[in-house]
Amino acid sequence: MDKTFIKMIENVELTEPIFIEALPGLGHVGKLVAEHMIHELGAEKFAELYSPSFPPQVFVGEDGTIEPMKNEFYFLKSQGETERDYIILVGNTQGLSPEGQYEICGKIIDFVSGYGVKEIYTLGGLGTGQAVETPKVFGAATTVELAKMLEDHEVTLRSADGGIIGASGLLLGLGMAKGMNGVCLMGETPGYFIDADASKAVLTVLLEILKIEIDIAKLEERAEETRKMISKAQQMEKEVSERMNIVPGEEDLRYIG
Amino acid sequence: MDKTFIKMIENVELTEPIFIEALPGLGHVGKLVAEHMIHELGAEKFAELYSPSFPPQVFVGEDGTIEPMKNEFYFLKSQGETERDYIILVGNTQGLSPEGQYEICGKIIDFVSGYGVKEIYTLGGLGTGQAVETPKVFGAATTVELAKMLEDHEVTLRSADGGIIGASGLLLGLGMAKGMNGVCLMGETPGYFIDADASKAVLTVLLEILKIEIDIAKLEERAEETRKMISKAQQMEKEVSERMNIVPGEEDLRYIG
Amino acid sequence: MDKTFIKMIENVELTEPIFIEALPGLGHVGKLVAEHMIHELGAEKFAELYSPSFPPQVFVGEDGTIEPMKNEFYFLKSQGETERDYIILVGNTQGLSPEGQYEICGKIIDFVSGYGVKEIYTLGGLGTGQAVETPKVFGAATTVELAKMLEDHEVTLRSADGGIIGASGLLLGLGMAKGMNGVCLMGETPGYFIDADASKAVLTVLLEILKIEIDIAKLEERAEETRKMISKAQQMEKEVSERMNIVPGEEDLRYIG
Amino acid sequence: MDKTFIKMIENVELTEPIFIEALPGLGHVGKLVAEHMIHELGAEKFAELYSPSFPPQVFVGEDGTIEPMKNEFYFLKSQGETERDYIILVGNTQGLSPEGQYEICGKIIDFVSGYGVKEIYTLGGLGTGQAVETPKVFGAATTVELAKMLEDHEVTLRSADGGIIGASGLLLGLGMAKGMNGVCLMGETPGYFIDADASKAVLTVLLEILKIEIDIAKLEERAEETRKMISKAQQMEKEVSERMNIVPGEEDLRYIG
Repeated sequence: MDKTFIKMIENVELTEPIFIEALPGLGHVGKLVAEHMIHELGAEKFAELYSPSFPPQVFVGEDGTIEPMKNEFYFLKSQGETERDYIILVGNTQGLSPEGQYEICGKIIDFVSGYGVKEIYTLGGLGTGQAVETPKVFGAATTVELAKMLEDHEVTLRSADGGIIGASGLLLGLGMAKGMNGVCLMGETPGYFIDADASKAVLTVLLEILKIEIDIAKLEERAEETRKMISKAQQMEKEVSERMNIVPGEEDLRYIG
Repeated sequence: MDKTFIKMIENVELTEPIFIEALPGLGHVGKLVAEHMIHELGAEKFAELYSPSFPPQVFVGEDGTIEPMKNEFYFLKSQGETERDYIILVGNTQGLSPEGQYEICGKIIDFVSGYGVKEIYTLGGLGTGQAVETPKVFGAATTVELAKMLEDHEVTLRSADGGIIGASGLLLGLGMAKGMNGVCLMGETPGYFIDADASKAVLTVLLEILKIEIDIAKLEERAEETRKMISKAQQMEKEVSERMNIVPGEEDLRYIG
Repeated sequence: MDKTFIKMIENVELTEPIFIEALPGLGHVGKLVAEHMIHELGAEKFAELYSPSFPPQVFVGEDGTIEPMKNEFYFLKSQGETERDYIILVGNTQGLSPEGQYEICGKIIDFVSGYGVKEIYTLGGLGTGQAVETPKVFGAATTVELAKMLEDHEVTLRSADGGIIGASGLLLGLGMAKGMNGVCLMGETPGYFIDADASKAVLTVLLEILKIEIDIAKLEERAEETRKMISKAQQMEKEVSERMNIVPGEEDLRYIG
Repeated sequence: MDKTFIKMIENVELTEPIFIEALPGLGHVGKLVAEHMIHELGAEKFAELYSPSFPPQVFVGEDGTIEPMKNEFYFLKSQGETERDYIILVGNTQGLSPEGQYEICGKIIDFVSGYGVKEIYTLGGLGTGQAVETPKVFGAATTVELAKMLEDHEVTLRSADGGIIGASGLLLGLGMAKGMNGVCLMGETPGYFIDADASKAVLTVLLEILKIEIDIAKLEERAEETRKMISKAQQMEKEVSERMNIVPGEEDLRYIG
């Protein structure tokens, strides 16, 4: 496996789909939003992406079963007022190297452009490093018009702030080269834990823009489950970081030389 | 040499072989188990794997002779009750980069799948960072059924623990994509030394599952020899780490610029 | 996107163009010089370079709009006494990995050599780590003759100083292999801020060599604007570095495993 | 430039050449030995190797002229008792990444094997981290016979010492796969400076093995010149390391974000 590839699960026909990206990031803000939409609106998975630039590992689920590192494409038929469908991208990781990020995001843009995507929403968290009363939603856009649109929805524009790192930024940048437009929504978060409040803030703005209605209350429950999973994971952190220290080969180098 | 490749040593016919991976890792738990099986059961080497993602170095043996970095495939004719043969993978290193790990493990899965492998056992150590009375054996599996099977053998399931890093995890993840199933067995170890006790615990469970009988006592002797070799290596560690600091080029950069 | 590529914006015919490189570096000395020339002399953009070795991110402008990472080629019709035209290279980043730097600079040299470039000027800053009264201009050249020419212009030759790192050095090195010659001009700078003084010093020497006249005073104003932009960026630094800590995937590794 | 390549300077016919490698490493022990042989015996350069895995920079010489990063192949007609010729490899750097090291060393082995090389000598330093009275020469070999031969020449065999890192080890490892044999000679050195004493020790053993005679005294003078060059370089170190901190792109990330 030396190239990123996409594995089709179901062939679907989509009408001018809107592309929503929510790969894991700070506070899992975007991931939580997308997972909530997927469950509440009954989106279906139709493709998976695998990459040699993902971390060389697997995750282990509650029941002791193994889950490979992957990104997952869900589709959703038209919601709310429009006739347009949706493609939602979630996953358990992003690429590790810069080259990997470009290869993966390039593949993703090519893939969704094949479905006629012209509009992109990328979701993430923005770390303030301190406690947050009521989380703001920060944003950026590919055009001045879309930036204005964000301000109309009480989104604070991020200006000259050193950019947007990872898939949330890169997908918009690469999409522009293919004539796609879009925005990035970032929920203000301390970033130290699964942040349901930041997710709620982002989801509220997103639904308002997309004119979709979902029960947001349930988001808190979902966040709760995730928190349990994570806190458990954190107990394991020390030991895991130890294993990280013995990255294959290096560990050899360390004690054999 | 810019691609991972496998060098055949002997052409063999194998019957529904079971694949056992034990590349170097924490406490050399898996390596010790596999080496013991290879010696006790008289497995024969039939292929070697070389990769540009291995550390750019060679090892030097007791007699001053040079040994390249490589992974080695051994085969073993049917043992115990079943008619099935075995492929055992050992080596002196793993890939350094994530991309390298994926390329190498992908090649390995393609290779063993060519022999009809449907079942994988990956062996390793799990670092607790503290002394261990009687080492537990932790495990994970590709299916709920196999996870249950592990529990029947007193294996503690690892759940939501941040995954399995390196070949032991990746081979199972990539194997799943090819319809293979399997489990990972990890011996609890402080991880600071060659841990024969953890290896014994893992070997006991593995033999029980595979219904094979071997004299486990000899494992302790083998561990002893390895310890001698290692402690010697550790004296050299300081000097080696110095040489590591002068990774080619960097060293140039450091003192010429 | 897994290869560096150049996107043409306008097809131009150029006469024995001189190539001037000023990608971002210490104190933004070169960048400031090139941007000043572009504005004062009315250079036009005719091509853009994109690379998977650029940082996996986008920048966000004052108005909240997104700007992809890229290098930009401007051309300028003959100035001053000569009949020769100019190609000026600026951008918002350089490649991250050594391999990336070589791939990008190789593409750049091939590209400009297609326009008949035989002469290269690369511009940058040289960090002294301490305050500078009146910044010196340091230089190096591909030939002894050009080195002498630099001394005639009061440029201090850098000898045995550990080389020139990044595009400013590599473009000259790769150009030599294609029979191009050139010099590197480095303005002495503490390097802690946008250094208009160092830029002025470099620009003065460059214009003198190229026998071009520009109002240098305006450079200070331009530097002022840039400073505003940067200081704002620096406020954001802490938060950004936090996001850097959660480089995709790693962040996963950190808290899930 | 995205592949390592070799540029021919002169076509030569060589008789069963012996290959001697001395790329930069600890204390520049090997480099000094090879440069001395090249000058004393009048070896001629016939090929150069360039690689995208070299550091992305150029060096600047005493006269302010630029020198690209490269490895250089010299040839030498038969010396002393034998009819056999020599290929000597020197350079100003080695590859930075593991993959790069493998690609470069693989190309080198293919290249010299084209000239019928069957015997390899790699030269380097071995860091003790403390002052050395009379430097020992350590060694390793591809066969037990060659290891014995080294002991006959008072070379101390390195056993289980964690291997030989970089080109000196890798060339022997990759050569073995092509049926070449050889030894690595490492001069004991604190490694903090250009170590002429360690070089003398290695050169003495090498000449003894190859039955060649050279005036060794001159080595001290050559080391002296090199020391001057280096100490000058070291003054520049601080500033250079600063520039290193602003590796292209990263520097962008640091202050723009």
